[in-house]
Amino acid sequence: MIDKTFLEEVELSGHILDSLLLPKVLDVIMARGGYYHIKSMKIGEKSTDPSVARLELWAESQEKLDDLLDAIHDHGAIPVHHGDCVTAVADVEGAFPEGFYCSTNFKTEVRVGGHWIEVQGQEMDVGIVIDPKKNTARCVPMGDVKLGELVVIGRNGVRVFPEEAQRKGELFEFMSSAVSSEKPKGATVREIAAAIKRTKAAGEKILAVLGPAVVHTGGGEWIVWLIKNGYLDVLFAGNALATHDLEQNVYGTSLGVSLDRGLPAEEGHEHHLRTINSIRRLGGIAKAVESGKISGGIMYQCIHSKVPYILAGSIRDDGPLPDVITDVVAAQKAMRALVPGVGFCLMVATTLHSVAVGNLLPAWVKVACVDINPATVTKLMDRGTVQTIGIVSDVEPFLRALVGELKGS
Amino acid sequence: MIDKTFLEEVELSGHILDSLLLPKVLDVIMARGGYYHIKSMKIGEKSTDPSVARLELWAESQEKLDDLLDAIHDHGAIPVHHGDCVTAVADVEGAFPEGFYCSTNFKTEVRVGGHWIEVQGQEMDVGIVIDPKKNTARCVPMGDVKLGELVVIGRNGVRVFPEEAQRKGELFEFMSSAVSSEKPKGATVREIAAAIKRTKAAGEKILAVLGPAVVHTGGGEWIVWLIKNGYLDVLFAGNALATHDLEQNVYGTSLGVSLDRGLPAEEGHEHHLRTINSIRRLGGIAKAVESGKISGGIMYQCIHSKVPYILAGSIRDDGPLPDVITDVVAAQKAMRALVPGVGFCLMVATTLHSVAVGNLLPAWVKVACVDINPATVTKLMDRGTVQTIGIVSDVEPFLRALVGELKGS
Amino acid sequence: MIDKTFLEEVELSGHILDSLLLPKVLDVIMARGGYYHIKSMKIGEKSTDPSVARLELWAESQEKLDDLLDAIHDHGAIPVHHGDCVTAVADVEGAFPEGFYCSTNFKTEVRVGGHWIEVQGQEMDVGIVIDPKKNTARCVPMGDVKLGELVVIGRNGVRVFPEEAQRKGELFEFMSSAVSSEKPKGATVREIAAAIKRTKAAGEKILAVLGPAVVHTGGGEWIVWLIKNGYLDVLFAGNALATHDLEQNVYGTSLGVSLDRGLPAEEGHEHHLRTINSIRRLGGIAKAVESGKISGGIMYQCIHSKVPYILAGSIRDDGPLPDVITDVVAAQKAMRALVPGVGFCLMVATTLHSVAVGNLLPAWVKVACVDINPATVTKLMDRGTVQTIGIVSDVEPFLRALVGELKGS
Amino acid sequence: MIDKTFLEEVELSGHILDSLLLPKVLDVIMARGGYYHIKSMKIGEKSTDPSVARLELWAESQEKLDDLLDAIHDHGAIPVHHGDCVTAVADVEGAFPEGFYCSTNFKTEVRVGGHWIEVQGQEMDVGIVIDPKKNTARCVPMGDVKLGELVVIGRNGVRVFPEEAQRKGELFEFMSSAVSSEKPKGATVREIAAAIKRTKAAGEKILAVLGPAVVHTGGGEWIVWLIKNGYLDVLFAGNALATHDLEQNVYGTSLGVSLDRGLPAEEGHEHHLRTINSIRRLGGIAKAVESGKISGGIMYQCIHSKVPYILAGSIRDDGPLPDVITDVVAAQKAMRALVPGVGFCLMVATTLHSVAVGNLLPAWVKVACVDINPATVTKLMDRGTVQTIGIVSDVEPFLRALVGELKGS
Repeated sequence: MIDKTFLEEVELSGHILDSLLLPKVLDVIMARGGYYHIKSMKIGEKSTDPSVARLELWAESQEKLDDLLDAIHDHGAIPVHHGDCVTAVADVEGAFPEGFYCSTNFKTEVRVGGHWIEVQGQEMDVGIVIDPKKNTARCVPMGDVKLGELVVIGRNGVRVFPEEAQRKGELFEFMSSAVSSEKPKGATVREIAAAIKRTKAAGEKILAVLGPAVVHTGGGEWIVWLIKNGYLDVLFAGNALATHDLEQNVYGTSLGVSLDRGLPAEEGHEHHLRTINSIRRLGGIAKAVESGKISGGIMYQCIHSKVPYILAGSIRDDGPLPDVITDVVAAQKAMRALVPGVGFCLMVATTLHSVAVGNLLPAWVKVACVDINPATVTKLMDRGTVQTIGIVSDVEPFLRALVGELKGS
Repeated sequence: MIDKTFLEEVELSGHILDSLLLPKVLDVIMARGGYYHIKSMKIGEKSTDPSVARLELWAESQEKLDDLLDAIHDHGAIPVHHGDCVTAVADVEGAFPEGFYCSTNFKTEVRVGGHWIEVQGQEMDVGIVIDPKKNTARCVPMGDVKLGELVVIGRNGVRVFPEEAQRKGELFEFMSSAVSSEKPKGATVREIAAAIKRTKAAGEKILAVLGPAVVHTGGGEWIVWLIKNGYLDVLFAGNALATHDLEQNVYGTSLGVSLDRGLPAEEGHEHHLRTINSIRRLGGIAKAVESGKISGGIMYQCIHSKVPYILAGSIRDDGPLPDVITDVVAAQKAMRALVPGVGFCLMVATTLHSVAVGNLLPAWVKVACVDINPATVTKLMDRGTVQTIGIVSDVEPFLRALVGELKGS
Repeated sequence: MIDKTFLEEVELSGHILDSLLLPKVLDVIMARGGYYHIKSMKIGEKSTDPSVARLELWAESQEKLDDLLDAIHDHGAIPVHHGDCVTAVADVEGAFPEGFYCSTNFKTEVRVGGHWIEVQGQEMDVGIVIDPKKNTARCVPMGDVKLGELVVIGRNGVRVFPEEAQRKGELFEFMSSAVSSEKPKGATVREIAAAIKRTKAAGEKILAVLGPAVVHTGGGEWIVWLIKNGYLDVLFAGNALATHDLEQNVYGTSLGVSLDRGLPAEEGHEHHLRTINSIRRLGGIAKAVESGKISGGIMYQCIHSKVPYILAGSIRDDGPLPDVITDVVAAQKAMRALVPGVGFCLMVATTLHSVAVGNLLPAWVKVACVDINPATVTKLMDRGTVQTIGIVSDVEPFLRALVGELKGS
Repeated sequence: MIDKTFLEEVELSGHILDSLLLPKVLDVIMARGGYYHIKSMKIGEKSTDPSVARLELWAESQEKLDDLLDAIHDHGAIPVHHGDCVTAVADVEGAFPEGFYCSTNFKTEVRVGGHWIEVQGQEMDVGIVIDPKKNTARCVPMGDVKLGELVVIGRNGVRVFPEEAQRKGELFEFMSSAVSSEKPKGATVREIAAAIKRTKAAGEKILAVLGPAVVHTGGGEWIVWLIKNGYLDVLFAGNALATHDLEQNVYGTSLGVSLDRGLPAEEGHEHHLRTINSIRRLGGIAKAVESGKISGGIMYQCIHSKVPYILAGSIRDDGPLPDVITDVVAAQKAMRALVPGVGFCLMVATTLHSVAVGNLLPAWVKVACVDINPATVTKLMDRGTVQTIGIVSDVEPFLRALVGELKGS
């Protein structure tokens, strides 16, 4: 006889079959040793219709049942009978109360006063703070919590909408095994170019996250073209990208290697240090541009075209440039402020910054991650940035082809 | 007829043949279109004798000649007739005067008042500041330069001793193509274990630089053993290593994956956030240990065994833990302060921190870099950390075997 | 109005929800621009019950509809109204008639005379030949087709059972993102050891496919242990594995590198050539063992323990050894003959042989593929060997741990 | 007191300093525990003059001394007093006598009747057979030895000239750390293009060794251009390259992926099987071209432009195509026959064939190896194909840029 002492009824709705949500939920339940009974299922007859499934779910103990409910919650399964979300008052500055609800990067709603309200500033791995006066909810990073704020606790009265992220087809038409170097490159480039144009047409911002290999491989000029032609609205990078870009403008080398001749210049390894030093003496990149010391390149073009950039510090930085935000928490905050309005993100040749930015983006911002090393893309996707298309390719030729595609059409 | 208008006579001494210094210098001269004539060469007859070579070196212009002299200077070739080193007064806080001498990680001497004095705190890619009163010289990072300090300009009166770094055989007996996964692992592990013991016996410190895969793969317990048994004196890491180590202690998982069962725990991705939050609530790792919240693992053992650690912030950090130094320049400074006395450095599974620390170490500190990805080691060696032995292997099994070797002998 | 001129009704049954079959079929239909209507769906209420779905499927042309039917056929969707399978007479020796049915590695049945019969020797990417007298069907590689044989044409009267392969949980309990180096290794090793023991207990054969890095890294002794203890019943490898194993026995080196000291032996690169030459002079491995020239190692143990081995030739072979089958088609045939009865396959450090053997195995033979390079596993899984668990790890330490696990329990 | 009982005098000549030969020899002697005394050294004063060094070399036993002499022999150091080379009669068909001299890929001479004669068909890892009547010597693979032939034994009377291979600068101007993805790609492509043109201008053949990713990534058209324009004289590949090239011509897909759309075609995985089957039915590629079935692509162009190709079989081949040489020893022989006259070899996206062909080429044939995976190039160079320039890049964009460069100039 079946013992249903510890039971809950949950519901899933949307494209739960073809977006794999229902199968995933059933899989999770079975894998964890739970039991289910599908009470009802209204399947969308046509491919465009949504479906609704209602499940009875039980386990051997309340603890196990709670585990199951937590596990399936991120896949969009919510209890049929729910009340409002529960909150606790923040009792320590810069930390959540224990038991805080931990956010995903999917669209999320919380139930306050019997009404579902959408959470603002959606971002994964942070908490949700409720403003009961304004009747609003927003994502808040751990370190930003203020004493006395109301933090959502547990999953009750919280629902997530993972579905859209599963349907990449809307922006990217190809998707299967994303990470392979043995794919036709022409088609991939066309697809990215089309996504960039769609984003621009939709009035959304295009964000680029760039590593220094963009400059080392000779791809700087293509980024300049993207900026000049309005295909790049925000730039996130580190000290290295900016330094090698400036070095190339001053010395014609990148990390001491001549882009024209491919040969290491003598004293080459010093060029980037001398470049940083000169910029420090002048007081920053903008002033170096103003003074005429810097007359071209990515950073020059950013300043010229008023494209905002965030240079985030890293423990291995030389110098760094005066523009670098050396405090990483401050740098995160600066990046976070520029995320709203971004519709497309192009990440090239940087694992560190790609993962960092991937953590900040809501799931509906499409991401194309280009790296010659398959591990970078895999890492990004493993960490939950599921909306990513990975392209294993060489940086400069990829950017050259992308610009060719944007020009050509 | 040969035009020797732009001529300089330089000298190399030491094991210039078998450490490849002379051939490298000749190669550089030819590759740059310079000319040379070997005026005299006293070759060490026995394998242990040093050699001395004196070269006439000329080029088509003074500029080209200067380039050549700069290029061969880092390989230990110095003009026969030299005066004192030249200095300039620092006129901008946190920046060198233009033309500053850019350091290597080799032992370096500067000539002051007719005498050669050794530079203190040797480190690559920084400048040299002279204290004329104390008659001392020391390496100074760009950002630490104070107004009015005397900074060495150009290469005159500066000599480097690259030789030792070329002779890895003293610490590591094998060396050929360092980066390969297809090497016998038993022999490699024995070699590293022997180097660690030699370092300890010499009274020098052993530094470990660790990435989070140490914990993910289940290698944490071996690091604990190393600390307990006095084989690890300083730890450099980031927020991730510490967090996953603490997470494992609290939840038995690492990034939500159970080390015992290999299965992702439900809510697993939340464990590291909850761990960070709890530690923030308690005020730091030491207090969490004190309170009994943390009862084992790497960080626990560091505190218990009074092993100093630096946790350097990164742009992708969650939280971070209160112990993390979020300003990267401050973190570099903190690491720099712990480098003196280090004789051996074990870098495991972290590209970012390995490169950062590699930049801080003088060339005579031996480094073993273990990573499953060959690119990490290659990157480290490309950036000038030549004293590195790269081991392409899996983290946990490598550490397990290393501990076995240290125990066994 | 919906035009259902080009319509077919198809059925799926089994664990079509939690094994993702139904969602995949719906996804394929939509991605190809087809339309569907779910006529009925009987969902297994409990997690162990199978489900049945019946779909109406239509497209804009018969050609498009046929494309859709082909596409979903490999996922187990078959027309509700089917007749017998269609055959054509082979009119060219060593080639199929045009339009031949191309097999998967899933269990397959063909309808002959109104009855479904199971195809023998299931293997992907070959054809199916019917013997109408014996009422049997078997997989036949292209080159083995004889004039006059009856070859199945098209997908009518053919049905595949992809479900089981989707449910790896039966043999392997973990499964998620298989290819990562950042997984706890202890748990993985335990899982593989358990699978090996289950296979042995079930009376099935264990097949090992080994590359030369097994010997280079010092892992040969662990393979010897596996053979001695009955954990390895068949060995597939190439000239290199056998040569370096024999070289190690004769010279104590592998590709000239001493396993004890890790140092390249002088003349080391000659050792493998001299080894091959000696074995050629003696007439083969068995005779070399008999003569006492070879007294240990993997090949010795195979002969001693009567474990059959196939050494398949490759274009880069030196020698090769007399035991190597230099004709690759003959080698495939020899391997194929040893596949029946295999229940578990351990592939270590060889892309070429792993892919080759992966192509020969039916989907119900579980595969563990161990390689330090993630690309090898990815390649294997991309080619359809879905039953593979990939372990990114270092060869010798992995094998050492596996043996430790098998011993310990 | 020094005991010089076991002593030999050896000589090195050529660019022994800047090609690093002398330092290497000294390094080998010391590493092996030998002793040396440099008796005389005539150093080329100008950079273009050769040098001569004479060394006394001794060890603690005759066996150790012989080891040392063997070790330094491959670096061009030969005893001052030498007699003729020693031979033994081949007493087993297809095997050398024990103690056979094992060749390098450097230019080699043997002393016969007091005269040095050059060895023909230079190739590494084979033996040398003397024809005393014709006074000639030639490289002979193990399996090709005939009963009664005179095979060179030991290193006496054999000298090698490793120098040239060390000086890549003649063909490639850049050389340092060859294997990095972070290099400017424009300069690299220009360099390869220039090398191809120099080879053509010198009347030497250009050999291409291609893997299937050339077609998968969409690079087939660029290879066609190279053939059409006389930049490709010989093609070595496998069943996969040819099949996917033919598949693309027949179906517009490569391994079932549409090159135009990047999407996997339905039944895509069957396309290559159907293609092979069709070609088998027609009797081979040439007949398929004749019949009009194949109207474009790499193989079509080879037949049209009378570019000879060798398709070597591999254990993982489907089919294979009738043109494939399924016996690997026969395939090696066929490739060997086409090597004479080759001056440049372009290897793209194939580890297996690159290593195989690398083994066949003498050291003076320059090689450019292009692969997105750094491990392939590393493997090639580790195995002794030192004349290789490795380019870590993406296949299609690299070929596109190469063609652009060849067109443009």
